[in-house]
This record gives sequence, structure tokens and C-alpha cells, in this order.
Amino acid sequence: MDLGISDKLKPLLAELKGFIEREILPLEPEYLAEIGVGGRWQFTARQTEIMEGLKREARARGLWNFFLTSGEHGSGLSTVEYAYLAEEMGKSHIAAEVFNCAAPDTGNMEVLHKYGSEAQKQQWLEPLLAGEIRSAYAMSEPEVASSDATNICTSAVLEGDEWVINGEKHYISGAGDPRCKIMIVMVKTDPQAPRHLQQSQILVPMDTPGVENIRPMQVFAMDDAPHGHMHQRFSNVRVPKDNMILGPGRGFEISQGRLGPGRIHHCMRAIGAAEKALGLLCERAVSRTAFGKPLARLGGNIDIVANARMDIEMARLLTLKAAWMMDNVDPKEARIWISMIKTAVPNISIRIVDEAIQMFGALGMSQDTPLAGLYMAQRTLRLADGPDAVHRMVVGRHELRRYSGEPEVNATFRDG
Amino acid sequence: MDLGISDKLKPLLAELKGFIEREILPLEPEYLAEIGVGGRWQFTARQTEIMEGLKREARARGLWNFFLTSGEHGSGLSTVEYAYLAEEMGKSHIAAEVFNCAAPDTGNMEVLHKYGSEAQKQQWLEPLLAGEIRSAYAMSEPEVASSDATNICTSAVLEGDEWVINGEKHYISGAGDPRCKIMIVMVKTDPQAPRHLQQSQILVPMDTPGVENIRPMQVFAMDDAPHGHMHQRFSNVRVPKDNMILGPGRGFEISQGRLGPGRIHHCMRAIGAAEKALGLLCERAVSRTAFGKPLARLGGNIDIVANARMDIEMARLLTLKAAWMMDNVDPKEARIWISMIKTAVPNISIRIVDEAIQMFGALGMSQDTPLAGLYMAQRTLRLADGPDAVHRMVVGRHELRRYSGEPEVNATFRDG
Amino acid sequence: MDLGISDKLKPLLAELKGFIEREILPLEPEYLAEIGVGGRWQFTARQTEIMEGLKREARARGLWNFFLTSGEHGSGLSTVEYAYLAEEMGKSHIAAEVFNCAAPDTGNMEVLHKYGSEAQKQQWLEPLLAGEIRSAYAMSEPEVASSDATNICTSAVLEGDEWVINGEKHYISGAGDPRCKIMIVMVKTDPQAPRHLQQSQILVPMDTPGVENIRPMQVFAMDDAPHGHMHQRFSNVRVPKDNMILGPGRGFEISQGRLGPGRIHHCMRAIGAAEKALGLLCERAVSRTAFGKPLARLGGNIDIVANARMDIEMARLLTLKAAWMMDNVDPKEARIWISMIKTAVPNISIRIVDEAIQMFGALGMSQDTPLAGLYMAQRTLRLADGPDAVHRMVVGRHELRRYSGEPEVNATFRDG
Amino acid sequence: MDLGISDKLKPLLAELKGFIEREILPLEPEYLAEIGVGGRWQFTARQTEIMEGLKREARARGLWNFFLTSGEHGSGLSTVEYAYLAEEMGKSHIAAEVFNCAAPDTGNMEVLHKYGSEAQKQQWLEPLLAGEIRSAYAMSEPEVASSDATNICTSAVLEGDEWVINGEKHYISGAGDPRCKIMIVMVKTDPQAPRHLQQSQILVPMDTPGVENIRPMQVFAMDDAPHGHMHQRFSNVRVPKDNMILGPGRGFEISQGRLGPGRIHHCMRAIGAAEKALGLLCERAVSRTAFGKPLARLGGNIDIVANARMDIEMARLLTLKAAWMMDNVDPKEARIWISMIKTAVPNISIRIVDEAIQMFGALGMSQDTPLAGLYMAQRTLRLADGPDAVHRMVVGRHELRRYSGEPEVNATFRDG
Repeated sequence: MDLGISDKLKPLLAELKGFIEREILPLEPEYLAEIGVGGRWQFTARQTEIMEGLKREARARGLWNFFLTSGEHGSGLSTVEYAYLAEEMGKSHIAAEVFNCAAPDTGNMEVLHKYGSEAQKQQWLEPLLAGEIRSAYAMSEPEVASSDATNICTSAVLEGDEWVINGEKHYISGAGDPRCKIMIVMVKTDPQAPRHLQQSQILVPMDTPGVENIRPMQVFAMDDAPHGHMHQRFSNVRVPKDNMILGPGRGFEISQGRLGPGRIHHCMRAIGAAEKALGLLCERAVSRTAFGKPLARLGGNIDIVANARMDIEMARLLTLKAAWMMDNVDPKEARIWISMIKTAVPNISIRIVDEAIQMFGALGMSQDTPLAGLYMAQRTLRLADGPDAVHRMVVGRHELRRYSGEPEVNATFRDG
Repeated sequence: MDLGISDKLKPLLAELKGFIEREILPLEPEYLAEIGVGGRWQFTARQTEIMEGLKREARARGLWNFFLTSGEHGSGLSTVEYAYLAEEMGKSHIAAEVFNCAAPDTGNMEVLHKYGSEAQKQQWLEPLLAGEIRSAYAMSEPEVASSDATNICTSAVLEGDEWVINGEKHYISGAGDPRCKIMIVMVKTDPQAPRHLQQSQILVPMDTPGVENIRPMQVFAMDDAPHGHMHQRFSNVRVPKDNMILGPGRGFEISQGRLGPGRIHHCMRAIGAAEKALGLLCERAVSRTAFGKPLARLGGNIDIVANARMDIEMARLLTLKAAWMMDNVDPKEARIWISMIKTAVPNISIRIVDEAIQMFGALGMSQDTPLAGLYMAQRTLRLADGPDAVHRMVVGRHELRRYSGEPEVNATFRDG
Repeated sequence: MDLGISDKLKPLLAELKGFIEREILPLEPEYLAEIGVGGRWQFTARQTEIMEGLKREARARGLWNFFLTSGEHGSGLSTVEYAYLAEEMGKSHIAAEVFNCAAPDTGNMEVLHKYGSEAQKQQWLEPLLAGEIRSAYAMSEPEVASSDATNICTSAVLEGDEWVINGEKHYISGAGDPRCKIMIVMVKTDPQAPRHLQQSQILVPMDTPGVENIRPMQVFAMDDAPHGHMHQRFSNVRVPKDNMILGPGRGFEISQGRLGPGRIHHCMRAIGAAEKALGLLCERAVSRTAFGKPLARLGGNIDIVANARMDIEMARLLTLKAAWMMDNVDPKEARIWISMIKTAVPNISIRIVDEAIQMFGALGMSQDTPLAGLYMAQRTLRLADGPDAVHRMVVGRHELRRYSGEPEVNATFRDG
Repeated sequence: MDLGISDKLKPLLAELKGFIEREILPLEPEYLAEIGVGGRWQFTARQTEIMEGLKREARARGLWNFFLTSGEHGSGLSTVEYAYLAEEMGKSHIAAEVFNCAAPDTGNMEVLHKYGSEAQKQQWLEPLLAGEIRSAYAMSEPEVASSDATNICTSAVLEGDEWVINGEKHYISGAGDPRCKIMIVMVKTDPQAPRHLQQSQILVPMDTPGVENIRPMQVFAMDDAPHGHMHQRFSNVRVPKDNMILGPGRGFEISQGRLGPGRIHHCMRAIGAAEKALGLLCERAVSRTAFGKPLARLGGNIDIVANARMDIEMARLLTLKAAWMMDNVDPKEARIWISMIKTAVPNISIRIVDEAIQMFGALGMSQDTPLAGLYMAQRTLRLADGPDAVHRMVVGRHELRRYSGEPEVNATFRDG
């Protein structure tokens, strides 16, 4: 169970770190400062120039699409190897996109790669892999507890050669981006079927008539423009029969395949975020003085630093092990490990970001440090892709089943 | 040590609750929806109409200036009695202002009431008590750890009959409000004096030449407009010699007097916020279904509810006791109790708001519930008026001194 | 809601503190050192001399039976007043017995006082009130989850004029004491009756044939001799029909009446224990040196002290409020408050004792400080009289019922 | 960084697990039941028969001295490999001794192996490796904070060809065992030398005149007989000059070499203990019924199980990584990892044992489950070999040094 940085990864990781430090981070403030200039839901010319320039350069250097570990387009990396790269990306707000490794595109590309028809791949996977368009995943609904995916009730009914979709989805991340051209939508196709065969996943181009942006959802008062987390209404949205992925009733099956990697990516980026926050915390602690001493020497601050270091190391190792399980064991077993990291890691990263905020005082909540943004991103993670409670239930039941002999209940929940 | 609701308070509390529920809360959404309409740093006509109408009505009913417990303008309430009223105000975003009990005006009015000259009272206290103008308190500075107030370095130098002020302050809460006419500014008047005699507090009208709004500071991406938390530069700001409060070198003495009540108000409003969050959490828990059961029946949710209830009760009792100490013992002793609540209470209210967010899922972070706003307000409280670490130091040192016999070091810190 | 020390209590509390400090604590080490000398389940002549001498003196001074707040034998104290006395007793291992205020006698005396027949009172209550005998309460059974009292299955069957009892009970506290003459035993008298009318409470003299001491139960390797926590078997134990308290099927009713006071006493003594531990911790922190500084100045130790102080104050206030509710509101409402303190307080006292152990290093676990004993006593409290989980359930359900409108399920559980 | 079970380890681990399950665990209750029979500080004939029989069998099968990873007597295992074996041993009270892998012998054997002279090896290392005698390590002193090893003040003065030792040591683990023949004693040889060159380690046979057993120290009321944790006085104890290990003033150097492995062993056994506790907890949760349901379905119990599983996995991975660092990097760097596990792991194992106790109710604290014993062992570990606070200081300082550029202060502390 090698969880280390492989010889193959070493130069790639070094190049990626260098690229982030030398090419991306210096441009990031300028990029971020332009958000909202000229309208919240569009990019400025300068933003486009920065992002497309970085993408071009990254792709030219082969720093591209790492997340896709296998297959013809695959990077050939293991999930463990990719995890180290994702951690680095987690230290920058825009790096994941630069390397074409940003959610929700990565999950969508995986779905299309694994389950898409040739036509679907050609039409949507190719431009996504090339970084030419972006995509969204519409799963969560305002009216039902979407953490239990069987609650989903947006309907798709086959009329002739078309599926007709009606319903509402919210928190569709990325749907605000003008470059977002395609959505995968979780729909209910057969309410009479057995509980896990009622759902399907279907491709809906963003410009399909009947798709309406109601409003951007906020996350702690941020709209995350122009990426956005949209609330949309689907009113008699018609898409060709062939837009169905894999076939009706197979929505869960697809979710299961999509589940793992995205969560590992999230968790590794969370560890990058925690490292970034701890670094800022330490810099502050050694440079800021109060009551005649550097903050590092006051009260329990050194304990805060020590606990953060231990927690990060444990979180990273657990995530690497989950990645290794993903690479090496049956997905059913790996699933438990993924639920473990999905619960444990964001709670750790939040705590560290929160301590960093406290060490900075008012500045920690201000626009002058990235901490407030990191906080919101980590806090969101405790809800996105299934709240803690659901993942804890998965882990707890699995453990108890070893003693009770009961069959495991299939907990099916949100993936995005 | 009567911590209960006195007979005298009972009808007043009932009237206040009724007023909030029947008059304020129904108008609150409309008021809040107009924030930013027509510019972030001004009020719309409708907002003014709502707020001034409510204030007029409240004042007419005698629901006004409760916070001022003693003196000719005093309500005659004890701090314990006021605490119960403050808790109710904490359940609404705008109620404190409606009753002319909003920070930082309350602290400023107390300072003027206690330490102001007759002329200062006439010019500034009167219109503040009447709710005609608003005010700000400029303490924290960007370049130094302001939790240690001796670090403050904005200077005031006497030139003839004028004090000339130079420096920068930030997180000046309320300074964005167009009705804000006056600031109390903490300045350093004598860098050579003993450590706690270097500072002074001085009145600076907002429109004094040289006072420059650099930018609004954000709190977790919110600018809290039009109230605002401003970053200002003071460049050769000249105010008359008589604007000094109490006299040069007495800044700390004033701070000490200002310390207590504001923190008790904050903490009682925090308890109101926690009650509001717990109420929302419970409503959600009994009405939302997942995995075939109401959320209340899933996993550890009932424990979350029970722990919240216990924590709120303990936090409330501790705050009431601190209020009672404020009313009944030497301020030096009461100070320890105030540091206790200032540390303990916001940590409890944050945890409860956070659990409520988790129970709501994505909606908990959205604009559709008040939880994200409550979260930010409570989180801010762990930093405002001295961070946890400083208050914990005060409490811990006091306790240890009983065993070591050492004299207490005067921890002097931010008040706002 | 006066939670303070009343004028009436003031001199009594002062006398009690003085008596503990001057009369009891100096003799305590000698008393404790004799435990086990000459056999674990008996007292030495010196122990008897010490204890009976102290009791005689205490009784002579009127420091006796405070716990009985009302009735002809009552102290006339409110529960709030008694709580302050109980806290002081919690700082000594033997003080509660000296003042005839030790569990389980107090609960048994309350039961006999409230529900006993005249004959029962004369035979058992009188000598208990006089401190001439001791008693036990047999509730918990080894084979069932006794936290759900409906599980109790020791049976009592009426044969002629006698009840015939069969079954096993364990953790019968105090049953090892040679002075223990009487037990109240919870039995099942009618398995066909409605769930809460199946149980009864019956008086069983310790020397009744068929009552067999199987073994002393340990608590963290301590047998707590000669008090002891016995495991007993009841084999065709015959007692007169009149030994039934109140009547068959009224076991729960009696439990409900017994519930409250005992738990308040436990919690107040727990606060005394926490104060004692914090005092020891602080003394150590200021007097012990490592790395060139007193421990108090190292790492987060001052925060540990501060948090302990705040937690104690909150725990004490909550317990006092529960006591006040006991005195002033309907027992059904007071019950919720008692469940709150029963959960919250021991968790706080354990944490503080644990921190004190850590501050002392190895000595903290040794026989040279009282900390290990305090730890075990506090840890036991999280299980005795209903585990945390059951009390949390009571509190959580009560809270949620305000929103769901569901009738409260009667959680009935162990009392002892 | 392979943290998995190597191919080489696989059969050995299987054999060890099988041996523990089939040979040791069935005899363990009988062995433990004989403790104290015929005197607390000796073994019964049956105990000797059991232990020596198991040792003979274990040694015959090559399940012997695994802990010694290198050198002529070495098992050839890496520390990572040994860690997996130690975890299994942690599930039994006596297994470590059966395989000759019990503390403090292991640390003493390592010291002799690494630093002993040929004569010292022959006289003491040989019989220890053969399991013929046992040993102790005398470090901690009652009068000073021994977590700061420079405080140690037992003196050794050279008189002619002999060192003359005077002082007191306590918590000398294993010194109660009649088979314990030799102690390594930390002494101060040169109070004038630089701070880290004042100490030395010296071999003292147990039967040397002047070595006096004052009393057994207790750990939470247990004396852990006949192993014991002795308090000894050294009064003019004379040992030959050659009993000094490595030379005067090199006590710290030896400690540094001894530090790592023992702590890794402790932590891996702690993980075994946590696994055992979690297993018991789960068995109880699925088999015990209250309020009409198995405990596993009540309240937050499933969350407790899930959190325990996650924490164990994180603790194990961190320990395995520390072991890997031990095998692969400079000891100075490995030291930080060892401080991390020494803090993080026992806190996790304690929490899990504590939850298991709570799930069992009173039985969890009784002699009928191994939980109370596990609790005490884990609690002790937070103090033994340096308390949490010291290890946290090591980790925190190391982290901060990356930002401050300050040289690391040499934290030197207790090893045992």
C-alpha cells in the first residue's frame, strides 16, 4: 500500500507546484479583482486572457486532465498520484480550472467517458477534454431532502423521440458561467419502478428552450459569480431520446460510478486549503506582536499549531488510503473509505481555517486574506455531495453489519 | 441573586416581544430586500419610512433607550432586566435599532452620559438619545494587534486650540450609514506617558476635513451595507480642543467604563440568535423527511437538539449572572464575569447556528434562511471587543492569582 | 428566581464549611487509610470512632438531615439552599455521611417520608433519620438494559401474606456496609399490567433468608469497600405483604418522586468535586516548574484554567436553576431540567478532574492525590441514575415536541 | 512509502494472530484470575506454568523478539512491519510478554544492544533476549517535573571504582516483578556540565544494597501487581564504574536513541486496544435492547461507531507513517512524527474505550469487561513517556520554526 509520491509523480508534482507558484498565483489577485466588473455573470476580456493563456500554457506542458486516470484520454496516473496534484491545486482559487481539473466538469467527463455513447462523447466529452466548454450537474432540488436521492422528483417523460423534463433544481454549480454549455440532469423516469431504478441521468444543453435561470443561490452571502450556483426551472424542456445516458432507470448506477473520484478530489483540495490556512496562521503567529510577544508565544497558540499539523497529516493519510482503495479494491469497499474522508476531512479543514481566522483577528474575515473564502468553501463541503450525517450513517452501518450480520441498506445520495 | 424576570419587567417584556412579532418581523423582509437598491451606502425611501415609522411607534410606547439603566435619561431597569429585552432583540435583524438600542450607539451614549461635558452631551448625546443621528467608534487599526490597546498608534497632537489627528482605523462599524454624524476615536496623545495613560478618546464629526473613507471592510464577503465596517484614513484631521472626552490620557479609564454593558448586550442578543437558530432547526427536523423518517428521528439529531438546549440555558444563566454582577459588585470583579461570557457565549451560539445550517442542508447557507447571516454575526463576535484568547487570559490569570498571590497584570484591550 | 445564597443560608453554609475544614478534612486521611485494615467489608474501631464522633458533633450542631427540605423532620431549606451545602460536601469523601446526607440513604428516606406507611416509617425511617442504620436501593439488573426500567424482571409474587422475590440485582451501592439493614427493591409484580404499572417497590431487610451477596462489583478496579456495590441473588426471599411501599404497581410513581432531589444532590456534589480539582490544578500550576517556568505559564495551561472556571460557573448556575424549578414548578417540568444537569454537569466535572490529572502527571493517577478517586466518582455519574444518552433523549424530545405537537413518550428509567 | 502489510509480514502476522487467538486468549482469564493469589508481588505456580509455556512455544515458533528490527539478534522486520504485530499484541493483556516484546524490557534491550559494552551485553542483554529475566527503567522522580529531563536530580558520584547513587525514583514500571533483575537508572553525574551533558544512564542490579522499595505506586487505584510501578529510594547504592552505559554525560544521547521505537510500540498497541474496545462496543450495540430497539438504533450511537472507525483509521495510518519515518529518515525528523502519534493516538484510543464503557453501562466499569483496564492503560499513556503538552510543544515549535527561522530549542524529556 504505497501512499507516497511515486518516482513517476515526482517531476510532475514539482512542475505543477512550480507552475502554480510562478504562473498562476501571481495572476490570481488580478483575475479575482475583475470578478463582477462589467456584470457578475460574465468574464472581462482580461479575465479571459489570463485564464485562456494559463490553460494554453498548462496544456502545452502536459499539465492537463490529470484527473482522468485511465482510458485513451487518461493521464495514466493512479488516484493516489492524482491526489497529490489535487492538494496543490487546492491552494489556489483558479488552479484546478487551469489544469482542466475543476468540478463539476471532472465528474461529468468521467460519466461521459465511462457511460456515454460514442455520439455523446464526440459532442460533449471532446470539447470538455479540450477545455473549450464547461458543464454543470443538476441534482439537488429545493423541495425535497436530496441527500436521499430517491426523493428526487424532477420528471422526464418520453414523448415520441423526445424526453420532456419538468421540475426545479437548485445549487447547480457552474451554471452561471457563460461558457457552460451542457448539464447532466438527474430525473425521475419511472415512479413505479423499484426504488433504485426510478432515476435516470440525461444531457440537457444549457440553451434548450424551457431551461430558465430563476436566480443565483448564495453561499454565506456569496454568489460565487460567474461560476454561480443556480436555481433553475425546467418547463417542458425537450431533448432528444438519445440524450439519456446509459438508458432509463440507470441513474443510480451512474451515480455510484461518479461517486468516488470527485469526493477524493474535493478532500485532497481541502487538505491543500488547510495547509494554506495553516501557513498563513503560522506566518501571522511569528510576525504579529501583542502584549510584548509574538502571538506564537501567547496562550495556547502553539497547541493550535500542533493540533492542526497532526490533523492535517491524519486527514491526508486517510484520503490517500481512500484513493488507494479506489485504485485497488472493489468499489463497494472503497465507498466506505470515501464516506470516511468525506466526513472527516472537511471538518478538519474547517477547524484549521477557523483557527487561522481567529489568529488574524478582524482581517481574517476581511477581503484582505483568502481565509473567509476558504472557510466558505470548506463549510460548503460538509453539505455538498451528501451531508456528514449521511456519510457517517454509511460508515457506522457498515461497521455494525460485521457484528449484526444484517444486510447493508443501500444509502443512495447526492453526487455533484 | 435574582436572575429571573422581575414583576416590573414582565409587562414590558411582553410588550416588546409583541411589538417585535407583530410590528417588526412582518416588515423586516421588505426592509432587508431593499438593501443595495439605489446604491449600497444609502437607504431607500421605503426603508426610511419603515424604520422611522417603527422608531416613532416604539418611542411613543416607551420602548426606547432601555439600555441606559441609570441617570436622568435612564430606563430605571437593572442590567439583568435589560438582558431579557436584549435577548428578544437578538431574534430580529433590525429590532435593536428600532428601540434605539443598537451598537455602537449604545456604547457611545453611555460614554457621553458618564464622561461627556455638558456641551458634548448637548451636541451629541441629545440627538443620539432621540434617535436622530447615529454614531461610530473608531478603535481597531490595521497595522497593529489592537486586542492589546496599548498598541494603538493613531496620533493626536495639540496645536493651539485644536487636536490634529493622523492615522488609520478600520472596522469602524456603522460608519457607512449616511445618518452617522459623529465618531469617538481612540488616539495616542502621549507616547511617553505610562502605558495606560498614553491614550485618549476624542469626538470627531464624520464630515471633518481629512476624514477619508478608504473602503468598506468585508465580513465573510458581506459589507453589511449601509451600516458598514469602514476603513478610514485620518490626515491632519483637526477638531477643537474641547472634543477630547474627560481629558488627555484617560482613554483607558473610559474604555473600562464602556467595557461591560456592551458585551452583556452582545451576549444576550447572541442568546436570542441561538434561540432563533434552534427554533428553525427544530422546525426543520420535525417537518423534513429523509430515508422515510423525519430528520428528528435520524442519527444523532435528537442529541444535537438536547445539547443545544442545555448550552443555551447555561449561556443565558451565565450572562444573567454577569449582568447581576454588573449591577451589584465592584466593576473590577464584574469584569471577570464579562470576560467569561464574552468567551463562552459566542462559541455556543456559533455552534448552534452551525448545526442549524447543517440540518437545513444547502438552504442553510443560502439567502432563503437567516442562518448564514446569523452565523457571520456570531462568528464576528468571537473577534469583536477582544478575541476569545484575550478574554480567556483575563479569566485564567484571575483564577491563578488566587493561588500565586501575584498582582494581576492589567490586560487592556479593544472595546467597540 | 433567586439563585443566590439566602440570608438564612449564609450562617449555616459558613458553619458547614468550617466544620468540614476544621473537623472533617483533618481526620479524613486517617479514616481512609484504615479502609481494608482488618477486612474489606468492615470498619475498624478507629473508623467507627471517627465517623460516629463526627456525626454526633454534627447532629449536636444541627448540621443534620438538610436534604429533607419539607415535612416534620424537614430542615426547612429550599432545594436551592441545600444545593449550596451539597457542593461543600462534594469536596470531602466522607462529609455527606457525617451530615446524614449520603446516598442512597437520602433517596430512601425521601421515599419512606413521602410514600411510607406509618409502620414503615417507624421501623425504618426513624433509625435512618437518626443515622443509626444505613440502607440500599436495588434497581439495576445484570441481564437487562436497566436504563429502560420496564426491562426490570426480578419478580415478586404474592403467596398468602408474603411477597416471594426471585431474581438478581447488581451495583447495589452501600450493600457492603455492615450497618446497612434495609433495602428498597424494585420488582415486577404484574407482567400483564400496562407497561408503567408492572413494577413495585418493596422493603427487604438485608438479613432476610434468600438474600445472597454474590460478589462486590468493581468500578474501575475499585470495590469502594466497605460501602460496596454488591451483586446479589434473591432466591425465594419472603417478606411480609406490608413491606410493599404504597401498593403494587406503583413502582414508577415512586421512582418519579424519587428522581429529582438525588440527581440535584449528585450534581451539586459534582460541582464541589470540580472546584476541588480546579483548586488542586491551580496550586500545581503555580508551584511546579518545568522548562524554566511555572506550569501555569506553559502552553495552553492558562486556557485550561479559564475554561474550567467558565464551565464550573455554567454548571453551577444550571444546577441551581434546576433546584429552583424543583422548588417552584410542576415536577413534570422540573424533570427536564434535572435531565439537563444530569447530562451536562458530570461531563464538565470529569473534564476538569481529567485536566487536573494531566497537570499533576503520574501523581495525578496515584494514591497521593484524590484525583483518581474523584475521576472514578464523576465517571460513574455519567452512568448512574440513567446514562447520558437517556437524559439527552428526554431533553431533546421535550424540545422537539414544542414543534411537532407529538405527545411526549414517557421515558422511564433507573433511579438509585 | 509502503504502509501496507508486506508479503514477508503476511504469514507472520497470520501466525501471530492465530497464536494469540488460539493459545493466549483462552488462557488469559485464568492467568489474570490468579493475580494476587498468594501475595500480590509474586506469581503462582500456575501463572508461571502458563506464561513460561506460552513463551517456550512462541519462541519455538520464531514468534520472538520482533521488536529488535536490526542487528545480529534482529528480526529483520521494519518498524512498519513490527507495528502491525504490536497492534495485535495490544488486544491481549499478556501477549506482548509472551513474545518477549513487553515494555520496559524492549527499550532496555534496545539501549543495551545499541550502546552497551560487550560485558554489559553478555551479562544483561543475553538473558533479556532469552526471556529469562525482566528489567526496569528508573527515570521519573517524585520531587521534580520529570517531563523536563534536565530536572532529574538523583545523583551518581564516582568514588574510586564505584558510582555511588542517592535519590528517589517512582513509577518504576516492572520493578515489582520478582523476575526483574536489572534497572537502567537515569542519574545526574555532573551538575556543572552544559544542560544536556549532566545526565547519565547506569545499570543497577535490583539486589544491590541500598535499593529500597518504598511502596507500589497506584494508577487509578490499581497497583498492576506483580508488574508494579514502584517508588524506590537509592541510599548510597554502589555499582561498579563499568555499569555506566556509554559514558558519563551521555544520558540524553541514549534517551534520544531510545525515544522512538517504544513510543511507536505503545501507539500501535493503543490502536489494538481501540479496535478491541470498538469490537466490544459494536457487539453490545447490536445485541442489547432498550426502549424496544437494539442500542445501535438509538440516538447517536451509529455516529459514535462511525467516528470511532474513522479515528482509528487515521490514528493507525499516522502511526504507520511515523514508523516508516523511523525506518527511512533522519531520527531528528522522525522525532516530530513520534511526538505527533504520542499525542494524537492515546487521545483517540481513550475516547473510544470511554464510549464503549458508556455503551455497556455499569458493566463497562466493572470487572466483567476488560474496558476499565483498557481505559486506565490508555489514560496512563497520555502521561507516560512525556505528557501530551510536551509532545505538542515539540510539534508546534517545529512547525513554527519553518516560518520564524528560529533554531529549535531542544526539548528533552522523559523516556521510560
